Amino acid sequence: MSRGEDGSVTRLTYAEVERRARLLARGLEGFGVQRSDRVATLAWNSFRHLELYYAVSGMGAVVHTVNPRLSADDIVHILNDAGSCVLCLDPGFAGLVEGLMGRLPLVRHVVVMGDGVPGLDGGHAGVHSYEGVLAGASEGFEWPTLDEDLASALCYTSGTTGRPKGVLYSHRSTVIHAYAVNTADVFGVRAVDRVMPVVPMFHVNAWGLPYAAPMVGASLVMPGRHLDGASVQSLMNDEGVTFSAGVPTVWMGLLGHLTATGGRLTTLKRLVCGGSACPAMLIERFGEEHGVEVTHAWGMTETSPLGTMYAAKPGHAGMGEAERARLPFKQGRAIAGIDMRIVDGEGVELPWDGVTFGNLQVRGPWVTARYMGATEDATDAAGWFATGDVATIDSEGTMEITDRTKDIVKSGGEWISSIQLENIAVGHPDVAEAAIVAARHPKWDERPLLIVVAKAGRTVDGAALLGMYAGRVAKWWVPDEVVVVKELPHTATGKLNKLALRQQFRDFRLASLEDVSDGGA
Amino acid sequence: MSRGEDGSVTRLTYAEVERRARLLARGLEGFGVQRSDRVATLAWNSFRHLELYYAVSGMGAVVHTVNPRLSADDIVHILNDAGSCVLCLDPGFAGLVEGLMGRLPLVRHVVVMGDGVPGLDGGHAGVHSYEGVLAGASEGFEWPTLDEDLASALCYTSGTTGRPKGVLYSHRSTVIHAYAVNTADVFGVRAVDRVMPVVPMFHVNAWGLPYAAPMVGASLVMPGRHLDGASVQSLMNDEGVTFSAGVPTVWMGLLGHLTATGGRLTTLKRLVCGGSACPAMLIERFGEEHGVEVTHAWGMTETSPLGTMYAAKPGHAGMGEAERARLPFKQGRAIAGIDMRIVDGEGVELPWDGVTFGNLQVRGPWVTARYMGATEDATDAAGWFATGDVATIDSEGTMEITDRTKDIVKSGGEWISSIQLENIAVGHPDVAEAAIVAARHPKWDERPLLIVVAKAGRTVDGAALLGMYAGRVAKWWVPDEVVVVKELPHTATGKLNKLALRQQFRDFRLASLEDVSDGGA
Repeated sequence: MSRGEDGSVTRLTYAEVERRARLLARGLEGFGVQRSDRVATLAWNSFRHLELYYAVSGMGAVVHTVNPRLSADDIVHILNDAGSCVLCLDPGFAGLVEGLMGRLPLVRHVVVMGDGVPGLDGGHAGVHSYEGVLAGASEGFEWPTLDEDLASALCYTSGTTGRPKGVLYSHRSTVIHAYAVNTADVFGVRAVDRVMPVVPMFHVNAWGLPYAAPMVGASLVMPGRHLDGASVQSLMNDEGVTFSAGVPTVWMGLLGHLTATGGRLTTLKRLVCGGSACPAMLIERFGEEHGVEVTHAWGMTETSPLGTMYAAKPGHAGMGEAERARLPFKQGRAIAGIDMRIVDGEGVELPWDGVTFGNLQVRGPWVTARYMGATEDATDAAGWFATGDVATIDSEGTMEITDRTKDIVKSGGEWISSIQLENIAVGHPDVAEAAIVAARHPKWDERPLLIVVAKAGRTVDGAALLGMYAGRVAKWWVPDEVVVVKELPHTATGKLNKLALRQQFRDFRLASLEDVSDGGA
Repeated sequence: MSRGEDGSVTRLTYAEVERRARLLARGLEGFGVQRSDRVATLAWNSFRHLELYYAVSGMGAVVHTVNPRLSADDIVHILNDAGSCVLCLDPGFAGLVEGLMGRLPLVRHVVVMGDGVPGLDGGHAGVHSYEGVLAGASEGFEWPTLDEDLASALCYTSGTTGRPKGVLYSHRSTVIHAYAVNTADVFGVRAVDRVMPVVPMFHVNAWGLPYAAPMVGASLVMPGRHLDGASVQSLMNDEGVTFSAGVPTVWMGLLGHLTATGGRLTTLKRLVCGGSACPAMLIERFGEEHGVEVTHAWGMTETSPLGTMYAAKPGHAGMGEAERARLPFKQGRAIAGIDMRIVDGEGVELPWDGVTFGNLQVRGPWVTARYMGATEDATDAAGWFATGDVATIDSEGTMEITDRTKDIVKSGGEWISSIQLENIAVGHPDVAEAAIVAARHPKWDERPLLIVVAKAGRTVDGAALLGMYAGRVAKWWVPDEVVVVKELPHTATGKLNKLALRQQFRDFRLASLEDVSDGGA
């Protein structure tokens, strides 16, 4: 089932999707698409997007999903970098694409994913309607036999620290990942499930659900563009959705809507929460008020994406009550196939004690070996990929992200977690938002600098704010100074723009240089 | 947890099993075991057998499990055919092995799987105790990096129609099979499960459980030798077993014991039943009386072994009540990764209507491509493996085995199911056992001949017996004649020996040759 932009409903069996995917492959063949060519999409989750996944990969080409929320510059860069020759888009993106065509010399064909005549000036490229392509294609396309190591899909990293980088997935890694996703302790999708990927198909292949659900015969419910609480709730109940996956923001919206309206979820059993840390409140309230199990997962573009997932373990019985209660809020255990470890700055492996934190590294059959077009491997000689996250791992193998590697403050050779310090600062009643930045220091290399935005009508007392850290962190973790600003910079996806903050405050002249007497190890 | 022959209990973590497996690998290295050498086992399910699985495969050699219930001749043939150079055995098989050593010139070392000094004359081979090998080995063995296509394990077919044939499994096929086994709709093992493989580890690798359970962190409970109802029940309850798998005979024994003693299963949730058709009564009574879900699975040595498994499907809701009720008694749906079809004698694919039956063929990444040492592929050019089973497939993809290919009666180009005719005959109050054999016929090629054994003190009236078929099968299916014999031949595993019957009755002179006027199509 798939909901269109106008609320229209389309129902297809997998047999019908497969027949239409063959027609689409035939049509793309007519556009001159050859083995390993890139076919790009700018689209929400829909049945046509699903058909594109299977048609493009199945014919031996590479389906290249592009995030329409990126800046125009990034979209242009990504399409040109990938060399995509066909661009398929939802009708709602016609205006966006029309404005970009002059900068997309490699795109030869534009396909508008609808059945009407597309009102779009493609410039140098041919413009087609999706249903027109299918109507004009002959039956009988035969899926070729492909090398399993051939690339099947392409996503770009979000590129918070530079240009987005391309990550290619192979048929092999995609299938193994789908098996792992379907194991009982991970997504555990069953044929009787009705699965709604709220996570977009341009967000690391909707975490593998467009592959995992058909693999076991589960139904897919494609929500299209509207992901507000009311839309998600009605679609879930109307379509009997049992399982869904997405980022915390969407689940916050759904929970807020349910609370405001007294609404219920009549069929939903499980939600997977990933993409960023899931607030404990979400897990607790969905469980207590709606009987829905919310499970934390972690991964990234480079890991296909699933790396860890929370799942109960016999060893948990031996833990203390408080520690056990916190487990569902952590990022979870490595799923079968993924090796995981934490290392210090010199690459020495650190203990799994739930306290020591270090750089998180992973390896496995669906972890990328090399970015597209790169001349060097993305992994070390032993296959380890540095995630850029800083994490702890407890004795039962539960991983918890504590920071990004770039954001950690390295004081006298020891690490200070920026996230822990920020979390304490935002607990102050006068503080609206807080960021910790590493300021250069002649003796300790770096020291934490706290930058805050005051709540409307409030004034922040720096000394009082720093007083909050007493007894909650080691003395040498306490930020040296507080800077109050009117606002903090954010990225397009709403995250703190630490890169901009670092550039701005890296050389901040700390007033109290000589007061730092007990910093470091 | 592992129960020894004497009832002793051993508990090890997987970390300990892995450490001991490294020591064992070091010891085997000292015996001169090299890449791809065969190391054989004659053993029940135990922790040492598990260590052997991982040590031998992990060092790049091939673990060759031998069924100790085979005839001495077959055991000798299998060990020599495989070229196994080390033979590991439970102490209980010392007498058996001692008597065979003179015919096993390739076996250089015999390892008795215990800690005592083994009382066994190994002839030309060195004799060692398993714990002695570990005690004498140095720590620090490093697992080599292996080609995934390297053979990791070896089983032989049961060989009902000739010499047993060797089937090699690769690291690759074993891992993919284990992922498939762990998907939610198949075994769906979770970390919190306690899994007891009742199916022996020499029976197609205990259906993959020694790989699947550790893969997700589930505990294994190894039952050792005693598989009577009382032993199985007490072990299940004492060890908190949640999941088990085995052949119908064992579950019949368990059910009988529970009924006789009023016993309960306090922790068991699921049983998988395979190896031969599971009686409907078993599924019904375990479900109704003990709240245990019994699920049917089908596979064979050549399929690693899992090919199909029953799992609910949305389409079942559209079926009639009677048809739906029968689903759990069928062999199930193809699990993700396996393609399945039925074909007629000319290889033409037959419809999935639940009625038409044909030769069952499968293909997939864990279906064997070629028997060990064979010069020809076991599959056709398109990768299809002929299972030797005759089956129907319904519109929802549920497969039901109706016969063995060799046992079907081909009359006038049409097929008659021997099993269906036998099932009707054994419903007669005077009949103890029945077999249908294809007798040669000049006009129809073959005609069904019914061979029966009368119950003690009864006499079989052939005409009355044949009268039972009226209205229950097509007129041309009715057997031509009835032969009453004192007993029917059986194989070592208790199955009807159809091969012997065919040889005896193939040329049986049918008295009523000219009466067959409406046979065939």
